[in-house]
Amino acid sequence: MNQDNEKPAAPDGFVEHYFGGQFNSYFGPVFRHEREPRLRFRVGLQHLNPAKTLHGGALATFADMMVAAHYPGAGSAEMHCPTINMSIDYVATAKLGQWVEAQVTLVRKTSRMIFLSGLIQADGETIARASGIHRIYA
Amino acid sequence: MNQDNEKPAAPDGFVEHYFGGQFNSYFGPVFRHEREPRLRFRVGLQHLNPAKTLHGGALATFADMMVAAHYPGAGSAEMHCPTINMSIDYVATAKLGQWVEAQVTLVRKTSRMIFLSGLIQADGETIARASGIHRIYA
Amino acid sequence: MNQDNEKPAAPDGFVEHYFGGQFNSYFGPVFRHEREPRLRFRVGLQHLNPAKTLHGGALATFADMMVAAHYPGAGSAEMHCPTINMSIDYVATAKLGQWVEAQVTLVRKTSRMIFLSGLIQADGETIARASGIHRIYA
Amino acid sequence: MNQDNEKPAAPDGFVEHYFGGQFNSYFGPVFRHEREPRLRFRVGLQHLNPAKTLHGGALATFADMMVAAHYPGAGSAEMHCPTINMSIDYVATAKLGQWVEAQVTLVRKTSRMIFLSGLIQADGETIARASGIHRIYA
Repeated sequence: MNQDNEKPAAPDGFVEHYFGGQFNSYFGPVFRHEREPRLRFRVGLQHLNPAKTLHGGALATFADMMVAAHYPGAGSAEMHCPTINMSIDYVATAKLGQWVEAQVTLVRKTSRMIFLSGLIQADGETIARASGIHRIYA
Repeated sequence: MNQDNEKPAAPDGFVEHYFGGQFNSYFGPVFRHEREPRLRFRVGLQHLNPAKTLHGGALATFADMMVAAHYPGAGSAEMHCPTINMSIDYVATAKLGQWVEAQVTLVRKTSRMIFLSGLIQADGETIARASGIHRIYA
Repeated sequence: MNQDNEKPAAPDGFVEHYFGGQFNSYFGPVFRHEREPRLRFRVGLQHLNPAKTLHGGALATFADMMVAAHYPGAGSAEMHCPTINMSIDYVATAKLGQWVEAQVTLVRKTSRMIFLSGLIQADGETIARASGIHRIYA
Repeated sequence: MNQDNEKPAAPDGFVEHYFGGQFNSYFGPVFRHEREPRLRFRVGLQHLNPAKTLHGGALATFADMMVAAHYPGAGSAEMHCPTINMSIDYVATAKLGQWVEAQVTLVRKTSRMIFLSGLIQADGETIARASGIHRIYA
């Protein structure tokens, strides 16, 4: 691990959000804003595609975490939220070392489903739009 | 690495398809059928979510590779194919050790874009529907 | 109504499928294959956009009917199937007088949801890919 | 046409936006805010499904118009903007006489494509999330 891939510190106002499992562990630290529905991670070497930019699958993995911006308990044993649908428009890319942030809108929550919409930016430039539908087993 | 995570051998009729970059390297081997538009990988420990089933982001990463089923050169320097849109319906999950296969339909190829549709199965049970739109820079 | 907009007769092997409500009534006759999951309509003047080709909203309306290809009772009082998600890729268009056909794959049916995937062609040329998720209230 | 289906007057701050073609003509008047990227229509009898609520295809037709919220010239001979992809999550419905409004975010515009994201409400309640990708021929 070189300097570019040091574990990033939590940005001001954010706390690290632990997602379990080996795939999330490889992805690395993701930070949740303490009061606003925003999630962040910093692009590391482990996220890169052959063109040395953020892999679309890595961005999709991050998009799949958006539910935690509104429901920090999602993914735990008490609130299992499997994804039903995910739709992503990729409009630009992100580079090694950039901070990527999802601003997440809760479109609707019913007793059984959560609908989310997110705008994803890298250092302030929009790189993707993502939406997700999740089932709730609570 | 334990027995469950040994590198799988290529199934009959399939060859390993090398996708470069660190994110794909972590994902592990993906196999392309030699004559039909089918891609496969075996679920390993590295793909698991906290519920110990296939992570939605890992499945999205695999879905993002579907273009290789029709264009084995995609992703190389000669044929850069960034993803514009990806849409996935998750209808079931896959477990450690299962083989996951995408059967990929080429919906249309224009001079600038490729449209794909895939059905993804785990040991014969459908677990997802995925579609992708890619730009072509060739 | 001129000759181009006469009500079309059912193609061989197809029967007219009645969808109620004023919006469907305006859309005009839709035909369901008697044994295979295929739906058809003929592009009439009422479906045209300003470029005098099939309106994207008209194609979306047709895509929203795909559930009837597998569940002819859908939409009736006994089986209310509201749409949760629809995703459409438009890859070409259709012209006045062409027959448009959706070949519909049932991706999965659970006790509460139906997942569909369709390929839509006009006189044999693929013009769209569509997928839908429906809730079931039965 | 009864009282419920009188042609609605433009709400304060909105102007009627003319979309040509027979399918749009049937849909009826759509209003564009003069300074903000918002579009509106009032649910009339012509938009209803068999359950006497807003037809999903009618909502998709409205979503397909979202590009006009940012580019009032879209759809004209000078700026042809065919839809490449549309994705809609339906989270509630709208009833006869309600005003439906799309608040449209321009995610990105390149020289060849426009990416949009919209939140759609009926009298202030969110009923759908929609996104669109359009090609530009200008």
